[in-house]
Amino acid sequence: MAASPSLSSSYRPTHGGNRNWAAQYADCKPEAILDFSASINPLGPPQSVLTVLTNHLHSLKDYPDPNYIQLRSAISNFHNLPMDWILPGNGAAELLTWVGRELAQLDATYLVTPAFADYQRSLNAFNTNVIPVPMDLETSPPKATITASANCGLLLNNPHNPTGTLTRRDDLILYLEKFSLVVVDEAFMDFLLPEQQQSLLDVILDFPNLIVLRSLTKFYSLPGLRLGYAIGHPDYLKRWQQWRDPWPVNTLAEVAAIAALKDHSFQQQTLGWLPPTRDALIAGLQKLPGLTPLSGAANFLLVKTDVPSTQLQKDLLKSHHILIRDCLSFPELGENYFRVAVRLPKENNQLLTALAQVLQP
Amino acid sequence: MAASPSLSSSYRPTHGGNRNWAAQYADCKPEAILDFSASINPLGPPQSVLTVLTNHLHSLKDYPDPNYIQLRSAISNFHNLPMDWILPGNGAAELLTWVGRELAQLDATYLVTPAFADYQRSLNAFNTNVIPVPMDLETSPPKATITASANCGLLLNNPHNPTGTLTRRDDLILYLEKFSLVVVDEAFMDFLLPEQQQSLLDVILDFPNLIVLRSLTKFYSLPGLRLGYAIGHPDYLKRWQQWRDPWPVNTLAEVAAIAALKDHSFQQQTLGWLPPTRDALIAGLQKLPGLTPLSGAANFLLVKTDVPSTQLQKDLLKSHHILIRDCLSFPELGENYFRVAVRLPKENNQLLTALAQVLQP
Repeated sequence: MAASPSLSSSYRPTHGGNRNWAAQYADCKPEAILDFSASINPLGPPQSVLTVLTNHLHSLKDYPDPNYIQLRSAISNFHNLPMDWILPGNGAAELLTWVGRELAQLDATYLVTPAFADYQRSLNAFNTNVIPVPMDLETSPPKATITASANCGLLLNNPHNPTGTLTRRDDLILYLEKFSLVVVDEAFMDFLLPEQQQSLLDVILDFPNLIVLRSLTKFYSLPGLRLGYAIGHPDYLKRWQQWRDPWPVNTLAEVAAIAALKDHSFQQQTLGWLPPTRDALIAGLQKLPGLTPLSGAANFLLVKTDVPSTQLQKDLLKSHHILIRDCLSFPELGENYFRVAVRLPKENNQLLTALAQVLQP
Repeated sequence: MAASPSLSSSYRPTHGGNRNWAAQYADCKPEAILDFSASINPLGPPQSVLTVLTNHLHSLKDYPDPNYIQLRSAISNFHNLPMDWILPGNGAAELLTWVGRELAQLDATYLVTPAFADYQRSLNAFNTNVIPVPMDLETSPPKATITASANCGLLLNNPHNPTGTLTRRDDLILYLEKFSLVVVDEAFMDFLLPEQQQSLLDVILDFPNLIVLRSLTKFYSLPGLRLGYAIGHPDYLKRWQQWRDPWPVNTLAEVAAIAALKDHSFQQQTLGWLPPTRDALIAGLQKLPGLTPLSGAANFLLVKTDVPSTQLQKDLLKSHHILIRDCLSFPELGENYFRVAVRLPKENNQLLTALAQVLQP
């Protein structure tokens, strides 16, 4: 859709993927923007998903099943976990709302920072007492030192966004013994090779104080459809169902998710594309003056920059219609960092060429 | 989708439109159920909507615009109201959640009963102090006598579900002068001819203590896609946006709504179909022994029955694969009433024939 003139150019998005804002700034159509700001798999959406969507348009005249039996069964099979430990949501962001309400009932919640902007939204929404735990960005990999207090919660993501840092499962298990509730957002875990993943889903049945959030948005390139899910003790999930409306997940998101989870070919293709493509992008960024990419475990890279990131963002938009993610919504990062998604090799080269041009003295 | 064996047949839905439950009970496929339980326009979805959905599957790889500028602009044009008084939601049910939280901040909320089950869910979710105001079902039309107290809220729908009663705008305006917050769910108002509508949208700019909820689900037959909106003072809507996630409305719901609101031909067709078809259904029901249909203003009818409604429901499902809405989730109605949607003339005749058979002594 075209950008609207009533969208003020002074409005700066706090999430990636806002093409309308970028298009207005670059004075082009939203479709003309090459978007490195949202960390979405460039190989998707899978054809299998587009096919079921086309075939299910007729079912929009029925309400979704409020129990989401088919969807929960598909997720249950995918992770080999019981259905009553699974709650689908209208994107992981909708589930974060209820996570925020749950955490607000504790004395305080430790939040690893820099943190995805929506964590702060969900914690503020229910007046949670937030204790920030800054990562040391000067160490490699960046690391947070978390000390627990009684009756407190912990919210973090793994791999961490925006640094890309992967925390070991064993380190997270230590927190589970100390915090009343630990919420781990694994939105990007699917992007890791199975043997490299550090998901807590393997141990979740042992920890009634653990909630894991997963997203199908990024890996299957469906952010417009909204689909995520929570895995955790049924007592939590039942309570959230009483808080929220009966049909948060639309029918098309439901059938898309079922098809996506079965698409092993797309999953293999993605895991084949990412590691070498990310390595090549890191190598290309390292060669550019004033840029220092951090090594990331997921499908995006955080890059330290000597030139202020908003200046770079502006130059790339105006001259190349390329959108990178500034980090102003992460106060700890500010102008010193930007984030880019790993895209197709050809697109990554476009980014590197454009960066080389705008960084020329 | 097929019914799952793990869906217990003892589970009874508290909303209409649960075909899976009905199919399991009737021992048939969900598609074989003729559903009178959900009050959905049988003429839809409009072809204009199906076309834009097909054309926008490619845009699922982008996030929705968190400001929903295009969508809010379309709603703004449709109602001739300012954009900042409009907030789209993931179905009106999602907006009810935030209505519930808002009402919970008052001393008490008056709820006209019998009430749509989801009202109680949203009020309970935030521990609202609820004062039921029963309608007198023996008067024609049924009427509630509402007395106001200071710092209290009022939640009702107009036309009323499940009785179909239409309350006059002027009567509602009196409540606006007495209650701190009045929430009127106009989910079925579109089904009335323009000259018969009693919408409060005409006066909403004069009342900062009024929230109107609207739904596109019923009129445009899109319950699977989830789309509703709230109209009210921007102070309320801005607060809800801080509570909820940034992308509650999916991209396909957004483009569908924009197309639907422009489809004057579908709107005219629906308004041409409903009044005579409803009259014929009322007349047919009146002829059946032990049934007394109430005259309803919307696309459904509440019917008083001498035979217990769950018995009728069971017989219709088993013998005719027809699903009617029992009223067990409305404690005031219980076994004495059922609700049916007005469907196509041929389908309504199927219902009348089936009812005649199961009512035979």
